[in-house]
Amino acid sequence: MRLRLDLGYDGTDFAGWAMQPGQRTVEETLAEALGRVLRLDPAPRLVVAGRTDAGVHASGQVVHLDLPIESWQAFPGRSRRPREQELLVRLAGVLPPDLRVHRATLAPPGFEARFSAIRRRYAYRICDDPAGVPPLRRHDVLWHRRPLDVGLMTSAAATLMGLNDFAAFCKRRDGATTIRTLLTYRWERDDAGFVVATVVADAFCHSMVRALVGVVLPVGDGRRPVDWPAQVLLGAVRHPAVSVAPARGLVLEEVVYPDDDQLAVRAAESRTVRTLPSS
Amino acid sequence: MRLRLDLGYDGTDFAGWAMQPGQRTVEETLAEALGRVLRLDPAPRLVVAGRTDAGVHASGQVVHLDLPIESWQAFPGRSRRPREQELLVRLAGVLPPDLRVHRATLAPPGFEARFSAIRRRYAYRICDDPAGVPPLRRHDVLWHRRPLDVGLMTSAAATLMGLNDFAAFCKRRDGATTIRTLLTYRWERDDAGFVVATVVADAFCHSMVRALVGVVLPVGDGRRPVDWPAQVLLGAVRHPAVSVAPARGLVLEEVVYPDDDQLAVRAAESRTVRTLPSS
Repeated sequence: MRLRLDLGYDGTDFAGWAMQPGQRTVEETLAEALGRVLRLDPAPRLVVAGRTDAGVHASGQVVHLDLPIESWQAFPGRSRRPREQELLVRLAGVLPPDLRVHRATLAPPGFEARFSAIRRRYAYRICDDPAGVPPLRRHDVLWHRRPLDVGLMTSAAATLMGLNDFAAFCKRRDGATTIRTLLTYRWERDDAGFVVATVVADAFCHSMVRALVGVVLPVGDGRRPVDWPAQVLLGAVRHPAVSVAPARGLVLEEVVYPDDDQLAVRAAESRTVRTLPSS
Repeated sequence: MRLRLDLGYDGTDFAGWAMQPGQRTVEETLAEALGRVLRLDPAPRLVVAGRTDAGVHASGQVVHLDLPIESWQAFPGRSRRPREQELLVRLAGVLPPDLRVHRATLAPPGFEARFSAIRRRYAYRICDDPAGVPPLRRHDVLWHRRPLDVGLMTSAAATLMGLNDFAAFCKRRDGATTIRTLLTYRWERDDAGFVVATVVADAFCHSMVRALVGVVLPVGDGRRPVDWPAQVLLGAVRHPAVSVAPARGLVLEEVVYPDDDQLAVRAAESRTVRTLPSS
């Protein structure tokens, strides 16, 4: 049987999602805690919706794991709570405070955390106050010392939306496509005065969100014209003047799945390599 | 001449506001930074609106300091910015990231950070999700493992409002009154699902806000009846069953001052000891 977990983490002290020898990663920390609480040995293998980099945060990350039905039925020894609720409480007791599982549910048939997802939503937060970032938000808000023009940033961001080859903003990997559909990319100033990007795509390639932020920042502070990001996109190769924005400001906020009857179809679709309609 | 500074800090790694030998305090950290940036030796003496305890945060703390007019005129060597703005930028360069000065202004005549204040507003934030506090908010939100009834908490809080002797909720100090006017005390559930107290008074005595939170928490989770906090108040002595809520959830959010022409009058008033009308 398959469990779906919804989780959040402060990425500051994690070397990203993916397990790496000798590093503190979200994957290993969570797998160990699940192994301990559910008495699974070895610890379960986890499939994640969005493999976040070192320092990147999440408030709406999704994971699935498979476990023998006997292990689930044997859990917990004694409890008045439903199993899913009891799992949350026990995980809260063993996980470090920078990692929390907020929801546990039995996955519907066909559910696959990575391939069933139809889109991912990220937020990137920036404080452009020359006096600095309010201390209680310093872990998830980037400080930019020059004032930003949110209107210019949204205009520039809009030129990147749609089905494009995002090679200019991706680390190239052999055999992997860099074609994605950027569904939303806009900038707003929120009630706290932070400049916030909302970035939604069907999927992202490695460091793509932070490169999309990095290419628009110099438009916001007047160092580049509004049409510069579109020029970079058309170049289709990594541009040396585009800096990947720091991990600190980035949060994976939501992973969206289709209705239950579409889960398996979507997973099969996602596994096929994406290609441009013209190619 | 007198400067007013508006500041914020993450109290987690500070031993409170007030300078103590061998401890990292907000007062000492800020005074040293000001001494360095404004070239004042010795470092300036600071007067603060609210002396927060170890671990308590602030987003709207107010401080004043006096400095020789020549020091201010000599600052900064060269800058295109107004002096007040330049001070913020230079302080951001030398202060640690858990302490930020957000605004610097020349204080109007009669302004006194502590005694001119007419009220202080604190917020206390609690997460009652059995799964734990969202990791990015763990520094300023308390985890309470039992679900809280916000309606019961507000009903209980309302019985404490007004001009009262808060001796039951204060550390008694010889010669100091414990009579205060509690202007606002209410509980709400915010958009993030946190249970948040708003507490406003003309002034607070030591640990009073956290004791006011501590006496209402057991009402919220059903361990005490709604009228229990009022009974404790009437007792007028520290009650052994009232626990002072942890510092982590508490933020000094605002200090309110009267119009400029009332600043000096208010300061004189505040210096007189408060007494109950009936006594």
